[in-house]
Amino acid sequence: MPELRKDPILGRWIIIAKERSKRPTDFVVEEPQTQGGFCPLCPDNEKTTPDEVLVYGRSANRPPNTSGWKLRVVPNKYPALVIEGEMDKQAEGLYDRMNGIGAHEVVIESPHHEDRFTYLPHEQMILTFRAFRDRIRDLSQDKRFSYVMVFKNYGKAAGASLEHSHSQLVALPILPRMLVTELDGSLSYFKYKDRCVFCDIIRQEIQQDIRLVCENDQFVTLAPFAPRTPFEMWIMPRRHHSSYMDQDDTSLAALTDIFSETLRRLDACIPGVPYNFVLHTQPLRSEPLQHYHWHFEIVPKLTSIAGFEWGTGFYINPMPPEDTCRYLREIEL
Amino acid sequence: MPELRKDPILGRWIIIAKERSKRPTDFVVEEPQTQGGFCPLCPDNEKTTPDEVLVYGRSANRPPNTSGWKLRVVPNKYPALVIEGEMDKQAEGLYDRMNGIGAHEVVIESPHHEDRFTYLPHEQMILTFRAFRDRIRDLSQDKRFSYVMVFKNYGKAAGASLEHSHSQLVALPILPRMLVTELDGSLSYFKYKDRCVFCDIIRQEIQQDIRLVCENDQFVTLAPFAPRTPFEMWIMPRRHHSSYMDQDDTSLAALTDIFSETLRRLDACIPGVPYNFVLHTQPLRSEPLQHYHWHFEIVPKLTSIAGFEWGTGFYINPMPPEDTCRYLREIEL
Repeated sequence: MPELRKDPILGRWIIIAKERSKRPTDFVVEEPQTQGGFCPLCPDNEKTTPDEVLVYGRSANRPPNTSGWKLRVVPNKYPALVIEGEMDKQAEGLYDRMNGIGAHEVVIESPHHEDRFTYLPHEQMILTFRAFRDRIRDLSQDKRFSYVMVFKNYGKAAGASLEHSHSQLVALPILPRMLVTELDGSLSYFKYKDRCVFCDIIRQEIQQDIRLVCENDQFVTLAPFAPRTPFEMWIMPRRHHSSYMDQDDTSLAALTDIFSETLRRLDACIPGVPYNFVLHTQPLRSEPLQHYHWHFEIVPKLTSIAGFEWGTGFYINPMPPEDTCRYLREIEL
Repeated sequence: MPELRKDPILGRWIIIAKERSKRPTDFVVEEPQTQGGFCPLCPDNEKTTPDEVLVYGRSANRPPNTSGWKLRVVPNKYPALVIEGEMDKQAEGLYDRMNGIGAHEVVIESPHHEDRFTYLPHEQMILTFRAFRDRIRDLSQDKRFSYVMVFKNYGKAAGASLEHSHSQLVALPILPRMLVTELDGSLSYFKYKDRCVFCDIIRQEIQQDIRLVCENDQFVTLAPFAPRTPFEMWIMPRRHHSSYMDQDDTSLAALTDIFSETLRRLDACIPGVPYNFVLHTQPLRSEPLQHYHWHFEIVPKLTSIAGFEWGTGFYINPMPPEDTCRYLREIEL
């Protein structure tokens, strides 16, 4: 069973995935493997994944785990956390640990192996955002979980191990450190100003209009004021809302439009750039929060000179977000 | 002038190094350049670096910036922060920024281009630890600075852009986020227990003896309980002390011994592994802190499967620190 361990100084939780344990010789520095001919995420290979937990687009008269789908969500075959068991929280002297209980799922975003997320047609891309919502809703029923992390790794440099377009969900019994810091920071601001810091950011950015990459009637894409890397972007709903899970299909259609435009602008600037995106949303089963505002963060993975972290949470970034914004706006789509 | 910007939600500071600014086409994904024949850090090329700010081993009758040295510290030729100017703290609406004032220095750890830090003889390696101390002492005189980050990137995958063995110092007008979190976390523990959490960790690790990699009369090397990556290690002084700057030569000799042993064990397990090490010490001009304990953290840079961060401050690590410790102890040096 994997294990969750807490750093006693920082409060940061780590998954120790013992089942994946390796000998030191497995860590020799190597290029990521290019994939062979077989893709477990392609249609007609459904039996090679664990049984799907959600499917869109397959007609009702076809059996589960067969072809004919538009999107599938399946448990990860090599999960970092396991769904069965008790948390069994324990101390080891001054340390805290618990069993690595959680869910680890893969969203297969298209049946077509060659599709890239950036260029999915609207009707296909929206299914991904619906799947995130519907899976979070379902996983939130499990009282053991506190949070569902939703993220995509695109490109080998950003950690993708399969070519076929996919993203991931990880349901956790604890809150990730970054979310705790965000919740704390935005609560401090709210106590002082009685306003949501994210709402204030959106208002200022629309007014200043120097870091606003694109917008529609429901969303804005910003190059944030203090970005970690060149071309970091945040996609935020204009209207205050703390929970992604509560978004309706109209909202997700507008999200799909701006996400697609944002990624196409990025790809036009730096063709094929690897990136990660991460959903930031409130903890499960929380009341709506006045101080928190759900959003996506997109962080391109560039060469080490491009966005450099010095091991102390301190980043150096050679590109001001105003330049990022200017380059992205200049693109003609 | 570079600029420091603060994320208004997380409180994280970022350096925007505009002078290094690039066009999007500069970010095409590329292999790090292998170096040509010329090395600016080698003896007889002293004139190609900025003037040295510290030198050891050159006889007094030789002029500065000539050969005959054992260790040199020079300002970085392409500094992320600049030494001249005022901080000029400003608001931009709800955001905070200031001029990128600071010092960025390079410690050239040996005159020999082929030397690797791991295998430096004791008398040479100790000069690096003295240089860290002596430069922090000197930089602490400048009232504009709050902290000196000290770190080493070994290997291209860990961010080293020059082959010649070197480490870096960056004096900052603000505290890095990770240090603030560490100070806060250790202070909370101290308020509750009236003891230093690091002292408690050392006591427990010596007693349990399952994550203790090596030790001498003044220091221990631990595989920490909740490591971010396989083979992460912390080198900590047994006696409580919050400031690296106050260490005497006897202490630095013992540090050199354990550092050398630790790195040689690591290199024997995973030959040539890239790594970063970072000094964690108290802020400049602080009184001695009862709750904080200076130490070094060594984090190997392995393949993405080996230590994976999901963009939310949440790590998955396939190797328990007890295994790390066992592998490292098995090495016969």
